[in-house]
Amino acid sequence: MGNILEHINSPADLKSLSIEELEQLCEELRQYIIRCCAERPGHIGSSLGAIEIAVALHKVYDTPEDKIVWDVGHQAYAHKILTGRREAFMHNRELGGLSGFPKMSESPYDSFGVGHASTSISAALGLAVADAKMGSEAKHIAVLGDGALTGGLAFEGLNNAGGLKADILVILNDNQISIDQSTGGLHNTLIKITTGRRYNKLKDNVWSALGATKLRRGIQKMVKNIKRAFIKTSEVNSFFDSLGFRYFGPIDGNDVEHLVKYLTRLKAIKGPKLLHVITTKGAGYKPAEDNPTVWHAPGHYDPTTGETIKQDDKRARYQDVFGVTVTRLATDDKRIVGITPAMLSGSGLSIMNDAMPDRVFDVGIAEGHAVTFSAGLAAGGMLPFCCIYSSFMQRAYDNAIHDVALQNLKVIFCLDRAGLVGEDGATHHGVFDMAAFRPVPNLAIASPRNELELANLLYSATCDDYPATIIRYPRGRGIGAPWKDEAFSKIPLGKAELLHCDSNATVAVLSIGPVADKCRQAIEQANAQGVGVIHYDMRFLKPLDTAALEDVLSKVDAIITVEDGCKEGGLHGAVAEYVAGRKPACRVESLGVPDEFISQGTREQLFDYCGYNTADIFKAIMSIYKK
Amino acid sequence: MGNILEHINSPADLKSLSIEELEQLCEELRQYIIRCCAERPGHIGSSLGAIEIAVALHKVYDTPEDKIVWDVGHQAYAHKILTGRREAFMHNRELGGLSGFPKMSESPYDSFGVGHASTSISAALGLAVADAKMGSEAKHIAVLGDGALTGGLAFEGLNNAGGLKADILVILNDNQISIDQSTGGLHNTLIKITTGRRYNKLKDNVWSALGATKLRRGIQKMVKNIKRAFIKTSEVNSFFDSLGFRYFGPIDGNDVEHLVKYLTRLKAIKGPKLLHVITTKGAGYKPAEDNPTVWHAPGHYDPTTGETIKQDDKRARYQDVFGVTVTRLATDDKRIVGITPAMLSGSGLSIMNDAMPDRVFDVGIAEGHAVTFSAGLAAGGMLPFCCIYSSFMQRAYDNAIHDVALQNLKVIFCLDRAGLVGEDGATHHGVFDMAAFRPVPNLAIASPRNELELANLLYSATCDDYPATIIRYPRGRGIGAPWKDEAFSKIPLGKAELLHCDSNATVAVLSIGPVADKCRQAIEQANAQGVGVIHYDMRFLKPLDTAALEDVLSKVDAIITVEDGCKEGGLHGAVAEYVAGRKPACRVESLGVPDEFISQGTREQLFDYCGYNTADIFKAIMSIYKK
Repeated sequence: MGNILEHINSPADLKSLSIEELEQLCEELRQYIIRCCAERPGHIGSSLGAIEIAVALHKVYDTPEDKIVWDVGHQAYAHKILTGRREAFMHNRELGGLSGFPKMSESPYDSFGVGHASTSISAALGLAVADAKMGSEAKHIAVLGDGALTGGLAFEGLNNAGGLKADILVILNDNQISIDQSTGGLHNTLIKITTGRRYNKLKDNVWSALGATKLRRGIQKMVKNIKRAFIKTSEVNSFFDSLGFRYFGPIDGNDVEHLVKYLTRLKAIKGPKLLHVITTKGAGYKPAEDNPTVWHAPGHYDPTTGETIKQDDKRARYQDVFGVTVTRLATDDKRIVGITPAMLSGSGLSIMNDAMPDRVFDVGIAEGHAVTFSAGLAAGGMLPFCCIYSSFMQRAYDNAIHDVALQNLKVIFCLDRAGLVGEDGATHHGVFDMAAFRPVPNLAIASPRNELELANLLYSATCDDYPATIIRYPRGRGIGAPWKDEAFSKIPLGKAELLHCDSNATVAVLSIGPVADKCRQAIEQANAQGVGVIHYDMRFLKPLDTAALEDVLSKVDAIITVEDGCKEGGLHGAVAEYVAGRKPACRVESLGVPDEFISQGTREQLFDYCGYNTADIFKAIMSIYKK
Repeated sequence: MGNILEHINSPADLKSLSIEELEQLCEELRQYIIRCCAERPGHIGSSLGAIEIAVALHKVYDTPEDKIVWDVGHQAYAHKILTGRREAFMHNRELGGLSGFPKMSESPYDSFGVGHASTSISAALGLAVADAKMGSEAKHIAVLGDGALTGGLAFEGLNNAGGLKADILVILNDNQISIDQSTGGLHNTLIKITTGRRYNKLKDNVWSALGATKLRRGIQKMVKNIKRAFIKTSEVNSFFDSLGFRYFGPIDGNDVEHLVKYLTRLKAIKGPKLLHVITTKGAGYKPAEDNPTVWHAPGHYDPTTGETIKQDDKRARYQDVFGVTVTRLATDDKRIVGITPAMLSGSGLSIMNDAMPDRVFDVGIAEGHAVTFSAGLAAGGMLPFCCIYSSFMQRAYDNAIHDVALQNLKVIFCLDRAGLVGEDGATHHGVFDMAAFRPVPNLAIASPRNELELANLLYSATCDDYPATIIRYPRGRGIGAPWKDEAFSKIPLGKAELLHCDSNATVAVLSIGPVADKCRQAIEQANAQGVGVIHYDMRFLKPLDTAALEDVLSKVDAIITVEDGCKEGGLHGAVAEYVAGRKPACRVESLGVPDEFISQGTREQLFDYCGYNTADIFKAIMSIYKK
């Protein structure tokens, strides 16, 4: 921590700093973030790029009365450190520590909680309209990346704000890259501007040509002058103009002096306005600048050398199993295409993209479109694998219902990051998918218990008797099951697998997904104490294997369902509905995520918190046995 | 039916018609639609406006190989009639008849099923990419209204299609009005163009100035010539250009000659292109032209006079109860604001809008934004009532989870059209809401059994002890319960109401929502046969009244849950989970929507089909009694 940073306990401490001191502060923030993130892995790339924006905003605006909404929140580390959370940042993303994202309950400076992309304009507009109605003069700023601009929600927000002529400032933090290279017509237009000679010529001297004297001539005149200084006839300019926004820019977003100078002026201009700033992802830290995709969230690294520290773990990640398997399947089946809304490397679809780029579509942050586009591809005879993280799939709920299931089209949904995701916390846990999709007709829903089952499910879903299928699997590594060189084996649709059956069983454990392995361990412990158990891996939430349930009901009078998802409506709901319909004297207990939003922590910590780790399963078995 | 129309059995029959004959055909289609819709109410306004587009498309393109995707599908009646469904159209929206929307299983000419807005570009892009991969030369056209353009999904589709340089044509059918007057910055820009003198001057003579000889000079040249003839520097032009689309227009979309001429030319131009056509909603039928909001879906009317035929029914519509009540509440509570994504008149929020327009926000077709904007308003201290039809709320699932519930903000969601909606059919039934939202923390979910309960729930939800609350109620009229002049009575959060309790009861009926009245009638019938029943109106799906359940379990060993929603996961799921957790010898049977998509019909017909009408409830009671 540097000399200046150690005295910044709130944005008030920024107000008296000179430009030179602000520049030093930015450098100190940079070093502090680099050091903290080396030990507590986080989203360092975006946050390094947005340090100057955070410093300039808190210098110019009167937060927390003036309200900043950070889109996604990956960019907001400097904001957190400047707003009273400097020491706490050493526990970023830890259980009981700071959330990795702005969070309203954490600080009054976090005007709105974020995590998913493209929400900032809508939320800032709501705050702005509310403040205006209450007679407040507060200012409202949404900061969003060029990646988030691809999301339809951002467009809806811009369009509504422009129509309402709301007094908000949108800062488009354009680092020319989101998690993966983003795509789309608008992106091409942005690139045209920022790589063009005109911007690069303008960059260094446009703003300095605008003297402070201009202020005297009144604001309307100033607007004209500022605008005249920029690229006049660009398409991107007109894009925002046509939505009712005044476009300003582009300017260098890693230059704190420029930012302070021109935010000060824009603050005086009423109405919807957009400032286009160009930043470098990972700015000021060479390893991160050189490889922005890896440094989006690099894990542990040596802060001095920038060498990332690889975990010595031979178990495959589910993402690799998916990527390798879908590539293998696509080699034999020309109908197969891969679609993802900006999760190319995260989902493992990058493996297929490297092998056959013309059959992979990264549509940018646009989950709804990814699904409806997949539906169109399926209607045209292709077999689309649509890869979306479970919590982001919530954004395409209607598209999956209305454009896939209702049309009876076959799309294979690969829902990565299903269940508790760990350090990303509440916004990113994928716990609602099973409950939300179970009532949807024409869908199968499955979850593999290990790597081999995932490979086999991916293969099985391509077979003709499978309808549109959701395959959900968690973040991270499997259990070390061999999978890579195995021949595919078809899993019968809707068939559970009996994994364990003691003749003296008093209780049945029904699990879905990789929690099967925790169940296995708990059952071993119970067996060691002489307690018998039946264990089915249900595999399919839908169709539900009612023959397996009948088998269970014929043998025991207690069932424990175990799922890495919410307790209501998913596996628990399916089993309880079936059992209650039969009037047996059988109790169904549920282990899963309780009815609350779960914060960040390691996955194991969160399993403990929610009560479905190995020890909890063992305890539940024993407690029923003792009754 | 006219002389020409009666000979059109497929688009092939259009090919040889002259322009004059096409014009006559349009007129005959117009009269036919006006006549049919008078008896079988439907979405006449949009369809009258799009007759010429349908005729011109089928004349110029080789459907069904070339594929047209109609956005929403309100506009597609002429398309249906032209594609072999002329006679069937007399049974539009009837049980066993035609769907009111394009539907893939109904005709090969319906390239993609629709109903919800803004999906057409994404779906057409998927079809186009699939056809291209398979070596087909087929053309792909998406036809969407200016209302649907407000939806973020349309933007995502445009952006992706522009980035991919896909060979698709988007026809922007701009009738300057969606269901209600649409809003937004882009809308203002469209209006500027089409009301400007330049368009009106150009309209009649621009296209005719372009001679057929231009074709000889090659396509690139032709593009330039066509574009030069249009408004060159308009913002809307640049809007689409910046997304990678070539913009053509605007032209008169009710002039079949112009449409045929220029679609023929555009057909030869590769790449993403947009043709902006101006149409009149209700074109050619004066009553509909004069009042497009009423004539969006006018119900029964006299085709000659254009007088709409009002139902003589004294029972209030739930929409009126909502509108009057929210206005009454807002008069006393200045925090209350109303938000709707383009369902102002449909939801009844128009009543509040008439009384206090500055506190009502119609954000256009943009469900996700409506919810996140509401969340921002709530974060700013307002108390937003967010009005969305249940099936459209599926599009804001993540916004409700991520931006409202997770932030613990208080938004009151008024989910109109919940349950089976009747004639609008599969795309519009609101049957998944209870199952989808039940697992979401920090939310209450309630459904009133009659008009008074709706008024009281709306009031109660404003009280401080209520969290964010979903209130779901059906389309149409209540049961005639007095409500208007009643003082508000607070409904305790999570409290069921015991409606009927026989001392000799063998079965309990647990209902939620207006199906309570069907249960009442069924119970009267059972009582008449000496069979005792307990009936609870559960009122709240969440929090669930477990005391009521304990009461039931202490008295009977059979429960029937009745809900106007899917059987899985909703009330049935909640009750089954609770009962199964207690190991009682109690059976839980479920009446509700089965695991299939339900087509169109009257609501009563569909209740019968799904098996939860009065007779079904009676039968279920008696069947348990006899066991």
